[in-house]
Amino acid sequence: ETCFDPAEHPHRRFNPLTGEWVLLSPHRALRPWQGQVESIDEADKPSYDGDCYLCAGNTRISGDINPDYQHTFVFQNDFAALKPDTPEVLSQDPLFQMQSAQGESRVICFSPDHGKTLPELSESAIVKVIDTWQAQVEELGEKYQWVQVFENKGAVMGCSNPHPHGQIWAQNQLPTLAEKKQQHFSDYQSTYQSNLLQDYVDKEMALKERIVVENQDWLVVVPYWAAWPFETLLMPKFAISSFKQMTAKQKTSLAQIIKQLTTKYDNLFQCSFPYSMGWHGAPFDGQEHNEWTLHAHFFPPLLRSASVKKFMVGYEMLAEAQRDITPEQAAQRLREQPSRHYKEATK
Amino acid sequence: ETCFDPAEHPHRRFNPLTGEWVLLSPHRALRPWQGQVESIDEADKPSYDGDCYLCAGNTRISGDINPDYQHTFVFQNDFAALKPDTPEVLSQDPLFQMQSAQGESRVICFSPDHGKTLPELSESAIVKVIDTWQAQVEELGEKYQWVQVFENKGAVMGCSNPHPHGQIWAQNQLPTLAEKKQQHFSDYQSTYQSNLLQDYVDKEMALKERIVVENQDWLVVVPYWAAWPFETLLMPKFAISSFKQMTAKQKTSLAQIIKQLTTKYDNLFQCSFPYSMGWHGAPFDGQEHNEWTLHAHFFPPLLRSASVKKFMVGYEMLAEAQRDITPEQAAQRLREQPSRHYKEATK
Ligand SMILES: O=P(O)(O)O[C@H]1O[C@H](CO)[C@@H](O)[C@H](O)[C@H]1O
Ligand SMILES: O=P(O)(O)O[C@H]1O[C@H](CO)[C@@H](O)[C@H](O)[C@H]1O
Repeated sequence: ETCFDPAEHPHRRFNPLTGEWVLLSPHRALRPWQGQVESIDEADKPSYDGDCYLCAGNTRISGDINPDYQHTFVFQNDFAALKPDTPEVLSQDPLFQMQSAQGESRVICFSPDHGKTLPELSESAIVKVIDTWQAQVEELGEKYQWVQVFENKGAVMGCSNPHPHGQIWAQNQLPTLAEKKQQHFSDYQSTYQSNLLQDYVDKEMALKERIVVENQDWLVVVPYWAAWPFETLLMPKFAISSFKQMTAKQKTSLAQIIKQLTTKYDNLFQCSFPYSMGWHGAPFDGQEHNEWTLHAHFFPPLLRSASVKKFMVGYEMLAEAQRDITPEQAAQRLREQPSRHYKEATK
Repeated sequence: ETCFDPAEHPHRRFNPLTGEWVLLSPHRALRPWQGQVESIDEADKPSYDGDCYLCAGNTRISGDINPDYQHTFVFQNDFAALKPDTPEVLSQDPLFQMQSAQGESRVICFSPDHGKTLPELSESAIVKVIDTWQAQVEELGEKYQWVQVFENKGAVMGCSNPHPHGQIWAQNQLPTLAEKKQQHFSDYQSTYQSNLLQDYVDKEMALKERIVVENQDWLVVVPYWAAWPFETLLMPKFAISSFKQMTAKQKTSLAQIIKQLTTKYDNLFQCSFPYSMGWHGAPFDGQEHNEWTLHAHFFPPLLRSASVKKFMVGYEMLAEAQRDITPEQAAQRLREQPSRHYKEATK
């Protein structure tokens, strides 16, 4: 009888933040790929583009003119998915339930430089981005239960403008995923009298198998339950439930680790590595929420190279997420990447 | 004060099958698109391709030779995600939960014709596909709790071979989504002493707002809670919990409605319409399951044209699904498509 080997045999792992399972099929990594390949745009971009509606001084679709900003710049999305003034509605039929949604959708330009993504910005420029995230979360958290800070990076992730930018959407209800996390943080706290992600940080630091990069304040791992091939989870080594509570020192070390992680990502396939990333912290409902730990997810779509991505289709849409390489293998490959950006290194 | 209008104001709708909400932003349909466009391959394909590893008589990567099949052909996936002989494992740490997975992954060629997708097959050829689905579900349901019949269609949906085919994966556990549905079918049954989807069919037939196509046995709607722009739900007008119970007459009317639905899909943007589709029926655990109704989902990625898709990224990955056009608008556009395939019509 053969013994079970997680690097060889199909198995499932459980995501304790969402309550969902992921199917792992490590042996499938050998499968040849004859399907769709993504186009790669590796042309260096100018630091200013006259046609870009996010560059300083340019006119947007709305007719508004961008200010001559020096660090970050935040404005209401010209095609906002959420708006503050939506009239109320509530439909109670169990099969036709509807609620109106109030909220806001803002865009945040990371810097005036059209051509520099996060890993290419200086640490002090990244601190400005973090300061802006914090100020936005603080302001919108006064009015809305949930504030979602995120970045869609790369055309393959639905990003329609190459000027480095993120988004901030605020919603008066807890979104579906936030509700699940609230449930799982609370349940863990009641069962173990302890904080789910702080326990997880401690265990990953002891095991050392899935660490990508760390510093005195922050830890990045490919989580045990990762669904995307090179998915990572960025967690604090200290207790913190919301962005609002982050100190200046913690913001500096965060800027450092974001630069290191995104540099390793770019170096992996020597391309501007696409992903969706975003922050999850305690809801703004007036409660304490010490069951929560603030954390960030990076969900990158690439699987084998700059042009071959993982498709979350079929079984994933109808049954459960499935991955080929193991989180341990992915963490090792990222960990081994140099900390210097490949574009810097080839200069 | 303005009144709430679901065709204009942001709102959320609840999916009673999964317990998840979808955010609707109808006003965003006007947003210009400057992002990634998909490549379109509309070249007519030959009915036989010597390089295709699914065509009759050809040799596969494994070295196996395909038989000279006349209707459908089923074989074990050469790179199966699930295998029958995986050794057992169980890890109980709440943060590191692992289970080994036993199962099978099979491929089903829909017909020997390399160039004909479902809408281009005759109704009697589609009946052969349905017969095969039924036989496979019956056989694999003897050994595994869950049998997932699905099709990934089109390169944009991760399909790596254009020869029309689907897949059948069987798993010894209930996959995450199946578990959610089991929960919601049961809860509805306990609360209302009635069947969730049979009640839904009755209400949609009365409302007539979201119907795409129907016949004496089957109804297709864009569900009230659809996440993908042109997502549809195919439901029986009769009580049935599993594919196993389907009669010859019901299979004939099913072939008819599948041909009609997929023809309307192709006609919408005059292209071979990509999607992932799949069937959900009661689990094979020896129970009765009259709380269940067998049904099929179609999840197509396209939003505005054959080359502009909806990206489920950012807010969708981190908060909840979001859509622009309403399900009612999508249903109307599909309903209005001619029932004759555009390729037939232009011959
Ligand atoms: O098995 P295939 O067709 O090679 O692979 C395709 O379908 C699978 C099941 O939906 C997905 O997990 C893969 O990402 C997709 O590329
Ligand atoms: O708002 P944008 O950048 O135009 O749109 C992008 O991000 C949104 C939020 O993640 C997604 O819903 C869209 O599908 C995507 O194209």
